[in-house]
Amino acid sequence: MAILYADRMQLVKSSEIREILKITQNPEIISFAGGLPAPELFPVEDIQVVTQAVLEEDGTKVLQYATTEGHVPLREKIAQRMNYKFKTNVAFQDIIITSGSQQGLDFAGKIFLNEGDIVLCENPSYLGAINAFRSYKANFIEIATDDCGMVIEDLADKLKNTPNVKLIYCIPDFQNPTGKTWSVERRKQFIELVNQYDVPVIEDNPYGELRYDGEIPPGIKAFDTKGLVVFLGTYSKTFCPGLRVGWVCASPEILSKFIQVKQSSDLHTSIFSQRIIDKYIEMYDFDAHVQKIVSVYRQRRDLCVSTMKETFPASVKFTHPQGGLFTWVELPKQVNARDVLVECLKNKVAYVPGGAFFPNGGNENTLRINYSNMPDERIVDGLTRIGKVLKQYV
Amino acid sequence: MAILYADRMQLVKSSEIREILKITQNPEIISFAGGLPAPELFPVEDIQVVTQAVLEEDGTKVLQYATTEGHVPLREKIAQRMNYKFKTNVAFQDIIITSGSQQGLDFAGKIFLNEGDIVLCENPSYLGAINAFRSYKANFIEIATDDCGMVIEDLADKLKNTPNVKLIYCIPDFQNPTGKTWSVERRKQFIELVNQYDVPVIEDNPYGELRYDGEIPPGIKAFDTKGLVVFLGTYSKTFCPGLRVGWVCASPEILSKFIQVKQSSDLHTSIFSQRIIDKYIEMYDFDAHVQKIVSVYRQRRDLCVSTMKETFPASVKFTHPQGGLFTWVELPKQVNARDVLVECLKNKVAYVPGGAFFPNGGNENTLRINYSNMPDERIVDGLTRIGKVLKQYV
Repeated sequence: MAILYADRMQLVKSSEIREILKITQNPEIISFAGGLPAPELFPVEDIQVVTQAVLEEDGTKVLQYATTEGHVPLREKIAQRMNYKFKTNVAFQDIIITSGSQQGLDFAGKIFLNEGDIVLCENPSYLGAINAFRSYKANFIEIATDDCGMVIEDLADKLKNTPNVKLIYCIPDFQNPTGKTWSVERRKQFIELVNQYDVPVIEDNPYGELRYDGEIPPGIKAFDTKGLVVFLGTYSKTFCPGLRVGWVCASPEILSKFIQVKQSSDLHTSIFSQRIIDKYIEMYDFDAHVQKIVSVYRQRRDLCVSTMKETFPASVKFTHPQGGLFTWVELPKQVNARDVLVECLKNKVAYVPGGAFFPNGGNENTLRINYSNMPDERIVDGLTRIGKVLKQYV
Repeated sequence: MAILYADRMQLVKSSEIREILKITQNPEIISFAGGLPAPELFPVEDIQVVTQAVLEEDGTKVLQYATTEGHVPLREKIAQRMNYKFKTNVAFQDIIITSGSQQGLDFAGKIFLNEGDIVLCENPSYLGAINAFRSYKANFIEIATDDCGMVIEDLADKLKNTPNVKLIYCIPDFQNPTGKTWSVERRKQFIELVNQYDVPVIEDNPYGELRYDGEIPPGIKAFDTKGLVVFLGTYSKTFCPGLRVGWVCASPEILSKFIQVKQSSDLHTSIFSQRIIDKYIEMYDFDAHVQKIVSVYRQRRDLCVSTMKETFPASVKFTHPQGGLFTWVELPKQVNARDVLVECLKNKVAYVPGGAFFPNGGNENTLRINYSNMPDERIVDGLTRIGKVLKQYV
């Protein structure tokens, strides 16, 4: 028997991270491969109180079908917080609730991408976005990236010389996988350039509030004068991912497309999940909760960086992220991080090889380390093991 | 400014039902337009108990990221119940949890349909499926349908003479919109024919357990010898839709595609929602709960049919469904149900014109009536109003 699938399915693969995560479910392995928030910080008892309140007050409504756009009071809270944290100027009408921000990425692909269209992205970029866009048969051109964001000259060159650029994808705050953040100046230069081409921008911002040093910069959306920027946010990192609540913020014309696509994709996101988060924000101090996460992750970031300094060979470079969940490691050019991983797994420690984050391949001397999901002693123990293995290769 | 969208967006429209539902949010209007379950039957208090239990037992896990396939104990319960209710022979490995069965429809489109591919469907068919498949630029050929299901001769003819049939879509139990059910004999003939062509079948079964007369027939999946049938189920009608939990049951090769697509679409369905349903089934009598729904809806179905008999003109035909949420009304050929709707809205009563359910248009003399979502007196009052309006046209 030969069932015929759509051509796009040749491009849809199981993500490499997912395969590594399967191996690392063995609790003996110290895994820096995932991107999971620390579960001990989930406000479980408060959520118990909140779910009871929601079911008592409005039991039948929170279990019934609901609108595609999402719960208005929650959308209002999101708009308000975006304006306060990321200096945007948006209202609830600009927001649709999605099932995590991964769904926003998938919808962006569906809305903007024909076969063969070009997505411009950072170099490296987020694997989940690459996979989502690839499933609509897009191609990628990577833009050179320095410590302040996309290199504007390179972006200008690619925009000028590529006829079918349909989307620019970026993660300006604590990028996945590098942990780097765009400077404010670069954000302004970026939007000035993009405005000349009318290309929509996906600003993916799952980590922006998890800042451990300095001030949160304005989002790229804050400088968006032509309604080109589509901002993706999520409660997965500041609250909990199991509820699957994220959002898309966009100008009316673009947002109407997201609403149409959401309707035929899954009608709406769990209204029970939406109401739980809405009620939590009403009953508790969301800022205090985020600050609690920030202080724990800051310490883990510090410990991660100091341990790498101590135990990694001197020729190995790594980022010192100001926030987010990841640091990015560059080995000497000739060392392949996939080979090193094989040896690390023998020593019961794991990470994600960085090559997977480059849509057009190469850069096999890189790797990503997550530090948000484990206690201090495991961070030290695990990184020390990686350091020992690295010394065999460097 | 002119933002360029993907070509497929020209085909993605806001559903007509959704537009009508907006008008009918006015509580003065008696609306038979929706397809909502009766909220007074949601087991709100039991769900309060269950959510507490789940959070107490496993608080951090039910709020964390989870596997794409879904919670194994719930998938086991689903497989077991499918085998018991629909006479299939499946195991949890054959099942992936989706965010409602609408998501299963969208994924089926993504997995199977290239631009211009043909979907064979009943005549009429479910609007939500038509819209989902259309967004992948598929075309539709409608198969003649009688009181026992798709007419096999017509299906054979279309399969033989259409080169690019990629999918057959059907709702064999209490079809939306007609309320009709396929005979067992027809199911067997159908699968024998399909087996000759190796075309995948989407068996959409949201209503199968809501049977008011007679025995539940085996699902088409029960006769599937070649792994061609993809069965879509949901808890939206037997439990509550607000949690957004449905499932896809398919053979290993096809299921692996659903898992890959789910991963890049939204990672996984809310694990909190999944665990609530799983725990409810453990702690309470799910069969008794479904029987409660069945007995209430049976009475509403009876009242709906008897009121139409009394108040509709004799030349108007309608189905007497054995289960599900809908009855289907055929007016004399020359009467347009959209015109009648305009007059009905003036009389503060609404339904969905049937033309929307025919992917290639026509059949404007039809309409769909939902009877699950309102108390007895409103059923009688509303249908009597429609009957009065109809007398002006017939």
